[in-house]
Amino acid sequence: MRIGYIGLGKMGLPMARNLRAAGHELIVHNRSRAKVDAFAADGGTAAGTPAEVSSLADVVCVNVPMPEDSLELLLGADGALETARAGQLWIDFGTNGPDTARRCAEAGMTKGVEYLDAPVSGGPSGAEAGTLAVFVGGTPEAFAQGREVLDVIGGKIEHFGPAGSGCIAKLTNQMIIASVRAANAEAFVLAVKHGLNPRQLYETLMGAFAASRCMEVDLPNLVLPRDFSARFAVDLLLKDLGLALEVGRQSGVPLLATAQADAIYQEIRAKGWGGLDAAATFKRLEEIVGVEVVEPADG
Amino acid sequence: MRIGYIGLGKMGLPMARNLRAAGHELIVHNRSRAKVDAFAADGGTAAGTPAEVSSLADVVCVNVPMPEDSLELLLGADGALETARAGQLWIDFGTNGPDTARRCAEAGMTKGVEYLDAPVSGGPSGAEAGTLAVFVGGTPEAFAQGREVLDVIGGKIEHFGPAGSGCIAKLTNQMIIASVRAANAEAFVLAVKHGLNPRQLYETLMGAFAASRCMEVDLPNLVLPRDFSARFAVDLLLKDLGLALEVGRQSGVPLLATAQADAIYQEIRAKGWGGLDAAATFKRLEEIVGVEVVEPADG
Repeated sequence: MRIGYIGLGKMGLPMARNLRAAGHELIVHNRSRAKVDAFAADGGTAAGTPAEVSSLADVVCVNVPMPEDSLELLLGADGALETARAGQLWIDFGTNGPDTARRCAEAGMTKGVEYLDAPVSGGPSGAEAGTLAVFVGGTPEAFAQGREVLDVIGGKIEHFGPAGSGCIAKLTNQMIIASVRAANAEAFVLAVKHGLNPRQLYETLMGAFAASRCMEVDLPNLVLPRDFSARFAVDLLLKDLGLALEVGRQSGVPLLATAQADAIYQEIRAKGWGGLDAAATFKRLEEIVGVEVVEPADG
Repeated sequence: MRIGYIGLGKMGLPMARNLRAAGHELIVHNRSRAKVDAFAADGGTAAGTPAEVSSLADVVCVNVPMPEDSLELLLGADGALETARAGQLWIDFGTNGPDTARRCAEAGMTKGVEYLDAPVSGGPSGAEAGTLAVFVGGTPEAFAQGREVLDVIGGKIEHFGPAGSGCIAKLTNQMIIASVRAANAEAFVLAVKHGLNPRQLYETLMGAFAASRCMEVDLPNLVLPRDFSARFAVDLLLKDLGLALEVGRQSGVPLLATAQADAIYQEIRAKGWGGLDAAATFKRLEEIVGVEVVEPADG
């Protein structure tokens, strides 16, 4: 299959590589040309514009962080729509609002193009391993058409309903991880402030009802070793929280916990920590309180 | 060992039974006399007051929900302190504030009595199975002395530091489960409002970063089957959140997420749902939005 891939970032690059390794012909485009040439050097076609990608591909994948960039690459000047033809499929792996997904699906329909919103979860390591969770929205026909591509890049692939449903599903994940990380920081900073050993608390809470995947990942890998380099950055989480809050506002679902987490993350960004990992909720509260969630020197 | 047990409720009764089954001599007291007589009928001594319990026991266990009741039973009129003697150990299984724990420990010291705060997690089923997580605070001597009792009732027993440390550790668990349940409700109600299948979302999120023990327990057992009968009641969680917020206020740790969750649970109690399970965050938001997180009729 001829697969166009637009966006060779931390996620897109390993995903495109996996598709190439699975035997597909790749036509790639990226804002910075160097990544395109490097990719093509190992096999594949370099394209100068999304329209060029679209003119050569059966399936066009888009993988950029911001919804406005997805819109521009698909529907804008020199975008995929310009050269699209009936029977083509677009797959957007970015986490957008459902409005963006519906708008792209409708624009595609004018030329007989199918569209899937297919945001993923699992980070660069999941992208490399081809084990991403994929949250899919679109018509049953589009999902059937995209299945071969999705099976290469994902481990768990779930089709939730029409265009936009994948984005909603992904946003619920983001809402929860934001609130959980806000709560975890409060719990551990309070405990350390009162002299408790956070490693011992971590091991205990992971066996109790407070256990979560975020706690399991963040405490031993980021917080205790003091490594807040971004697996998933605050700036990107804030983009998702803004989309989730907008969906809630439009549909009359008041999201109090999400709004509180969003305010906490806005404070983190205001400190200049937007590029840190979303576990920076710990760093924020540690600074306020004047303690660090680290293992005691004598333990 | 002669073990006094004060408070034969949903948690205390199975814990006291396990201690009796382990071969200990039990001296029991409870506000309602019927439970005491029923327990004693199967073996053990019925006592009319905490002071009577204390006069006959090497270890006095207290297991009541409210801190003020712990204080009254240990330090009040006809309380355990009146007949306590040097070498005795008190173990308080209730979730109190650290101030209450320290006050009991200091009062006990005046008569040479050791004290452990030892709040538990795991619910009635964990109490019956003897697999509770136990969050312990107290001197190393008190912990060593209490170990034989704790090993009978608990599966994971962690000593966090001096008196009050067990309460702090337990409160961190409660803070987190409150925020997680608030966030989970927002995620699933938003998804259902937009037509997603909550069973499918549950299975997907449990494989993603949003996964948590609360989600794993609540969705299949309470929310989807519409059974909000209390495993752990909103009223009790609100008591714990009040204690946690007070600890935060006293020690200068601002707890924004916990405060938001507390406000949500106050709203739930104001609706008359204080006796429902803490998963009633779903019921609250479902009522506001006008949807239910149930499996679709056709699915």
